[in-house]
Amino acid sequence: MQRLLPAADAEPQRLHAAMRYSVLEGGKRVRLLLASAAGELAHADVERVNVVAAAVELIHAYSLVHDDMPCMDNDVLRRGKPTCHVAYDEATALLVGDSLQALAFQLLAEHELSDDPRRQLAMVKLLAAASGSRGMAGGQAIDLASVGQQLTLPELENMHIRKTGALIRAAVLLGAYCGRLEQAQLDLLDHYGKCVGLAFQVVDDVLDSEADTATLGKTAGKDADNDKPTYVTLLGVPAAKQMAAELHREALQALAPFSADARRLHELADFIVLRKF
Amino acid sequence: MQRLLPAADAEPQRLHAAMRYSVLEGGKRVRLLLASAAGELAHADVERVNVVAAAVELIHAYSLVHDDMPCMDNDVLRRGKPTCHVAYDEATALLVGDSLQALAFQLLAEHELSDDPRRQLAMVKLLAAASGSRGMAGGQAIDLASVGQQLTLPELENMHIRKTGALIRAAVLLGAYCGRLEQAQLDLLDHYGKCVGLAFQVVDDVLDSEADTATLGKTAGKDADNDKPTYVTLLGVPAAKQMAAELHREALQALAPFSADARRLHELADFIVLRKF
Repeated sequence: MQRLLPAADAEPQRLHAAMRYSVLEGGKRVRLLLASAAGELAHADVERVNVVAAAVELIHAYSLVHDDMPCMDNDVLRRGKPTCHVAYDEATALLVGDSLQALAFQLLAEHELSDDPRRQLAMVKLLAAASGSRGMAGGQAIDLASVGQQLTLPELENMHIRKTGALIRAAVLLGAYCGRLEQAQLDLLDHYGKCVGLAFQVVDDVLDSEADTATLGKTAGKDADNDKPTYVTLLGVPAAKQMAAELHREALQALAPFSADARRLHELADFIVLRKF
Repeated sequence: MQRLLPAADAEPQRLHAAMRYSVLEGGKRVRLLLASAAGELAHADVERVNVVAAAVELIHAYSLVHDDMPCMDNDVLRRGKPTCHVAYDEATALLVGDSLQALAFQLLAEHELSDDPRRQLAMVKLLAAASGSRGMAGGQAIDLASVGQQLTLPELENMHIRKTGALIRAAVLLGAYCGRLEQAQLDLLDHYGKCVGLAFQVVDDVLDSEADTATLGKTAGKDADNDKPTYVTLLGVPAAKQMAAELHREALQALAPFSADARRLHELADFIVLRKF
């Protein structure tokens, strides 16, 4: 990541410093690790996988910077540090997010990521679709509209499949696309990605309701305070935990045909469901 | 553009309606017209050129939506209509910009734009670089940092080459890339794009200092009010007009070898320099 980001002394310095501040240090790097583990499963070139993993992580980082802004979640703490608009200013945070998004697509286009350039164009399309108005940004819009609303479980799921699920799925598939897998294998990995993506959110909701701010590295109890529907408000903690466990089991089932090659993806599914922060 | 944007009734409807609001209706469409005219010069397939022209216009539209937000220029009027964050809300405007950017890259990746997919990847890279922290977003960051500062002419030029110039240049080149031109011809078009990009900004500064809000369709006199350095504050109106005329002449010179094929690019250079709004 260090190497793929603009240097802090490249003009405009303040913007580049803020980009590095928002991407480097901290974070669980779940998307980066998923892309990397999927690439390993697909026996892909490590350099190629590193680029797609970084691109996905840049999209994630941009979304956090924008989501934390006062007009969205208005959060002051992220990864145990002041959020970008607090450490810098709102205008810079806006441009940081915009620039990180552009950089993600630049990385996917300027490095050779596949022997087949058409496959690489498909990768650009996948990341764009996962990030845009029908993916992550769309999920965020549904989330905003849902404040104070009573959502049904399918509505909540629809929101999260877009808001966090789309990018997590894309991370797994982009890593896998760097190697050579059959379509049936890609479908299994896509299902794995869908399950861990949803599990990630369910666990997030449980942690947000149970943990404290210091452990999370971000403001805890925020969703309930903001009157946002979550798996916990809808199902209660025990049923939410059971849902996470079922998604966990389903994710591991999708990995079964890959046997030992899927070791790291298996570990990541465990981490996503069993983590305490 | 109508056809390439998500339908207003596609979920999330409010986001998609706001995206359409921010892109359709109004605007001079200079970037779209430049891409289209460059494609015509290169005898490129019209469908392909339409896609790249739309992608460039989406990037431009996203930048306007974000630039108008309260934390940036805080403008309430754009293209004679309330700005996106006024017509909708700030959070939606933020997501509109983010989604339009993603859609631009999705369009460039999902349509066949060149017989050579590697050339198409180069087009994605070109648009990403023109939009990002070393291009348009970087220029905007320098612009913000320059409020109340005394810039030299080269510093002002550096800012505008990024802020508006990079995307205008990209528009010309992307249109041309859809066809088949020699590198020497692309270099001439790139020089044309550089000249009209800078001329565009110089003329903008002159118009901003002279015109009224109704004619401009956006708030006039804003730059001077905001204590922003412009070509007019730095050179005065007569010298700024002369600079525009020289850039105009240089742009037309770059087109000379193309003779009649460059008719539309010639007309656009005339429009950019001689326009009254």
